[in-house]
Amino acid sequence: MPSYTAPTKDLQFVLHDLLNVSQSDIPGYSDLEADFTSAVLEEAGKITSEVLAPLNVVGDKEGCSLDNGVVRVPTGFQEAFDQVREGGWTGLDMPEEFGGQGLPYVMGTAVGEMFSASNQAFTMYQGLTHGAASAILAHGTDQQKETYLPNMISCEWTGTMNLTEPHCGTDLGLMRTKAEPQDDGSFKISGQKIFISAGEHEMASNIIHLVLAKIPGGPEGIKGVSLFIVPKFIVNEDGSLGARNGVSCGNLEEKMGIHGNSTCVMNYDEATGYLLGTEHKGMRAMFTMMNEARLGVGMQGMAQAEAAYQNALIYAKDRLQGRDVTGVKNPDGPADPLIVHPDIRRNLMDQKSFVEGGRAFLLWGAMMIDKAHRNGDKDADGLISLLTPVIKGFLTDEGYDMTVQAQQVYGGHGYIEEWGMSQFTRDARIAMIYEGANGVQALDLVGRKLAQDGGKHVMAFFDLVKSFLKENAENEALKADFMEPLKAASKDLQAAGMFFMQNGMKNPNAALSGSYDFMHLFGHVCLGLVWAQMAKAAQEALDGGASDKAFYETKLATGRYYMARRLPATAMHLARINTGADTVMALDAEQF
Amino acid sequence: MPSYTAPTKDLQFVLHDLLNVSQSDIPGYSDLEADFTSAVLEEAGKITSEVLAPLNVVGDKEGCSLDNGVVRVPTGFQEAFDQVREGGWTGLDMPEEFGGQGLPYVMGTAVGEMFSASNQAFTMYQGLTHGAASAILAHGTDQQKETYLPNMISCEWTGTMNLTEPHCGTDLGLMRTKAEPQDDGSFKISGQKIFISAGEHEMASNIIHLVLAKIPGGPEGIKGVSLFIVPKFIVNEDGSLGARNGVSCGNLEEKMGIHGNSTCVMNYDEATGYLLGTEHKGMRAMFTMMNEARLGVGMQGMAQAEAAYQNALIYAKDRLQGRDVTGVKNPDGPADPLIVHPDIRRNLMDQKSFVEGGRAFLLWGAMMIDKAHRNGDKDADGLISLLTPVIKGFLTDEGYDMTVQAQQVYGGHGYIEEWGMSQFTRDARIAMIYEGANGVQALDLVGRKLAQDGGKHVMAFFDLVKSFLKENAENEALKADFMEPLKAASKDLQAAGMFFMQNGMKNPNAALSGSYDFMHLFGHVCLGLVWAQMAKAAQEALDGGASDKAFYETKLATGRYYMARRLPATAMHLARINTGADTVMALDAEQF
Repeated sequence: MPSYTAPTKDLQFVLHDLLNVSQSDIPGYSDLEADFTSAVLEEAGKITSEVLAPLNVVGDKEGCSLDNGVVRVPTGFQEAFDQVREGGWTGLDMPEEFGGQGLPYVMGTAVGEMFSASNQAFTMYQGLTHGAASAILAHGTDQQKETYLPNMISCEWTGTMNLTEPHCGTDLGLMRTKAEPQDDGSFKISGQKIFISAGEHEMASNIIHLVLAKIPGGPEGIKGVSLFIVPKFIVNEDGSLGARNGVSCGNLEEKMGIHGNSTCVMNYDEATGYLLGTEHKGMRAMFTMMNEARLGVGMQGMAQAEAAYQNALIYAKDRLQGRDVTGVKNPDGPADPLIVHPDIRRNLMDQKSFVEGGRAFLLWGAMMIDKAHRNGDKDADGLISLLTPVIKGFLTDEGYDMTVQAQQVYGGHGYIEEWGMSQFTRDARIAMIYEGANGVQALDLVGRKLAQDGGKHVMAFFDLVKSFLKENAENEALKADFMEPLKAASKDLQAAGMFFMQNGMKNPNAALSGSYDFMHLFGHVCLGLVWAQMAKAAQEALDGGASDKAFYETKLATGRYYMARRLPATAMHLARINTGADTVMALDAEQF
Repeated sequence: MPSYTAPTKDLQFVLHDLLNVSQSDIPGYSDLEADFTSAVLEEAGKITSEVLAPLNVVGDKEGCSLDNGVVRVPTGFQEAFDQVREGGWTGLDMPEEFGGQGLPYVMGTAVGEMFSASNQAFTMYQGLTHGAASAILAHGTDQQKETYLPNMISCEWTGTMNLTEPHCGTDLGLMRTKAEPQDDGSFKISGQKIFISAGEHEMASNIIHLVLAKIPGGPEGIKGVSLFIVPKFIVNEDGSLGARNGVSCGNLEEKMGIHGNSTCVMNYDEATGYLLGTEHKGMRAMFTMMNEARLGVGMQGMAQAEAAYQNALIYAKDRLQGRDVTGVKNPDGPADPLIVHPDIRRNLMDQKSFVEGGRAFLLWGAMMIDKAHRNGDKDADGLISLLTPVIKGFLTDEGYDMTVQAQQVYGGHGYIEEWGMSQFTRDARIAMIYEGANGVQALDLVGRKLAQDGGKHVMAFFDLVKSFLKENAENEALKADFMEPLKAASKDLQAAGMFFMQNGMKNPNAALSGSYDFMHLFGHVCLGLVWAQMAKAAQEALDGGASDKAFYETKLATGRYYMARRLPATAMHLARINTGADTVMALDAEQF
């Protein structure tokens, strides 16, 4: 059975050596001293590695079942959920006034990685609740906040997000679910929603569904969509639970992975709902959650890669097969461990350099969200909006590929469910799809974010890279291995942006045909940037006589790998982008 | 439920327009007139699309079960197997003297693609039998051939290959299964084998296991391994079935995919076995099958991509979501079909250009095998030996990626088992692992095949590309779109070979660290080559006034996509290779 060890040390490195969180002026960050964050991460490490990780395979094997409208979760999930609730983990970065711990989002993300890595399907129950609670926090009335938030933040009640319908996923303007206004100001919600994660279960005493629906007579399409709170049990004025609402789980989907999470078809049959936010502005309300939600999914991609990598590494050190071509390494054994072989190294280094780079990218992104929310920093908000599709699309695509590579280390055993490597792959697969399929992320990036506010944010990103390169131009220790590759990669990114500017206006397809490549090109540049920054931090620690020399030297070596071996992908993506739409759109649909 | 349509027309194009099979001097090829191959392919198309494809999901859902030593296959498999046997499909390319149809291997491969694409798990029962029969054909005594081949070629009896043991997969020198010589010339085989595809079932009246084992007292390691025939039921001298042999299925593996195939733990308990070939030369006997077997697995990768692509295309034309940014395409509908969107096109064109290129590469490879076997052509044998790891590794990696892309077209529905797209991905995954994991293919390519016969075969490959480029240097219609990209890509391949030559002797790790990239670089050059050749054939057909203009124009457009969008990967692989072992091997094992 796979194991999971929380990467506490590496998280501490990113928080303190790289991001210097406790020195930041973001409200709440001064509390994030190394001792404090270490204590939080250690505790999170315990519950995730000892309680959640062992349940990961159980959840995969048992899955959820539907019995007369009642959804049963896998063995042990209820007890674990109780422990997570009791530990206060569900409200870590939620406001103290509603029972949360009030920590910054960056800490929620650091801890969230461990939860996702140890058990993605389980963690989604609280993850969806977090998303729904955030929406109520941002758009609810005072009364709605008081009614729902304390119980949602403690996960006494869980939450869901209901967007998709059978005939519409990305294109929500096609939505059919209706919300009929009632005399008392409430609405009657009717329709069917699909792919509702954690849609029904008995782990919580109530479930608060956030449902997108159309109020008859409103604007056509996406502009006539409103957001509603639809509780499974109506909440009485005194806070007690009342009647069962007209919402039920019609079916459980059989999925490729995340079996431990109940993915429901939800039927709304004149269910009582309460408008959240403004009429017809439901999409806007959803979109304010988008950056966080998408960063969270990017995190899942990275987290599954981390978990898979840990187990691939254990196997590579343990499994004896073949001999080192440069000389026997394990003379007392019948063969050398897999890790002596260069191609196994390549495989492991791909994973290691991605995971550590991805972690830094994510936490940097989370810090930007804190800056935007806690400091009201519009530039940070613009930059994280730009980078969100990159975080989501690039980290989930690459994260998935890394789980496939980790599985490959196991040879035939990687294909056998008993060894658990297949689950990482199957679970990671969903992250490329939900919360906006990655093709939609690429469209968002190129079609919307690049030009946002007159292209201000992408220019800010380039300035950031340029300043960093300039500041470190004389750093001989890092020049050849880090600064030059970063410079080359960011030039590729600029050239791609230039191609879009010159061709996209005449022919939008010329830009959109390169959108997916651009997302990956951008992702590599971001990882190149954080790797160069981490290298600088590691070099400074070594120069300053850090006691843990091996850690920092390993960090530098891992970074060098990324810069030398992964970053050359940017030129390939640029070459593809530069071919425009010609070959992509050459065929008529009928010619396929 | 997914559907499958046999790509008869495209197969005919490759066989006749590209490979000109009926004009070849290879014995048996003159029979391969277009009408004849068309008739065979049409018939194969019927049974695969009508009988096997509908059973694909059944097999995935039901899987196999073990009940008191008896393995049950999924519903409908027995009836379908009977139909396949009755149709004579199992011996298509087997010698007529043992009941086969005597057709060239190239036809076996063309038909085999359809079988694999429509139902990989099912097709493996006959596929393994084919492999085992080929081994007996090549290494058996006359009596062994007479005893086993007719029933194996008709699939009255099926066959298996038993190599892997729990502690050894790639490194078969660690093998523990023993073969004790008996007075009558037979052996008693004892030990455990794992991952035995089609190891036990009741679809055939006997199962002929080919088992690698060590005769005590023989040479150490891989040099002391012999190959044995171990029938499930002993075959009496009159050909009737005798006593049950000491071989049994101890367990069925739960796998990520190919659920319809029974993957068995096989226990040999003093089972009677008969030496096949020479004592201690078992590996050599296995290796003579290797090119075919690995080409067959490369075919599976391409075939799953084909099946997945067909369904992605149907969905992309059918599903209405969003509007074409350049103008509404479906004004009468609520939205335009997915296929209008550039990123969906990119996705589909990746798949289409890979599948068609991969098909051409495979059939060209199969023709080389025929040349080697039927013409005794040593050069062809050398070239296909060189290309075999490329076919296996590149086509299964890329094939898998394409099934993932096809799944992505479906959005959330791609993750739901009901839609069947997950199965293509899960089934395709095994092809990257079995018959030598792809890292081992890369090692074989760089560590062994490149330098084989003094590098003669890789030089022959380069000569082939060069001659083709030279012959077509003045072809203005193809120059910019095909010849120049091919030239650039083959230069990258040569440069990589040069790097290995200059650095590999001093430090084998410098070459082996780039082996995986080299395999992919080589694969792209091969697909670039066959695409340029197909473009030439298509252009000639158009110039010659072919009636099916649309087909040839589509072919050219698809080829242009590959050259423009996929081939630039070669420069990235070269850049990685050129970094040698420095960053790959920088860390000690303990530093990970």
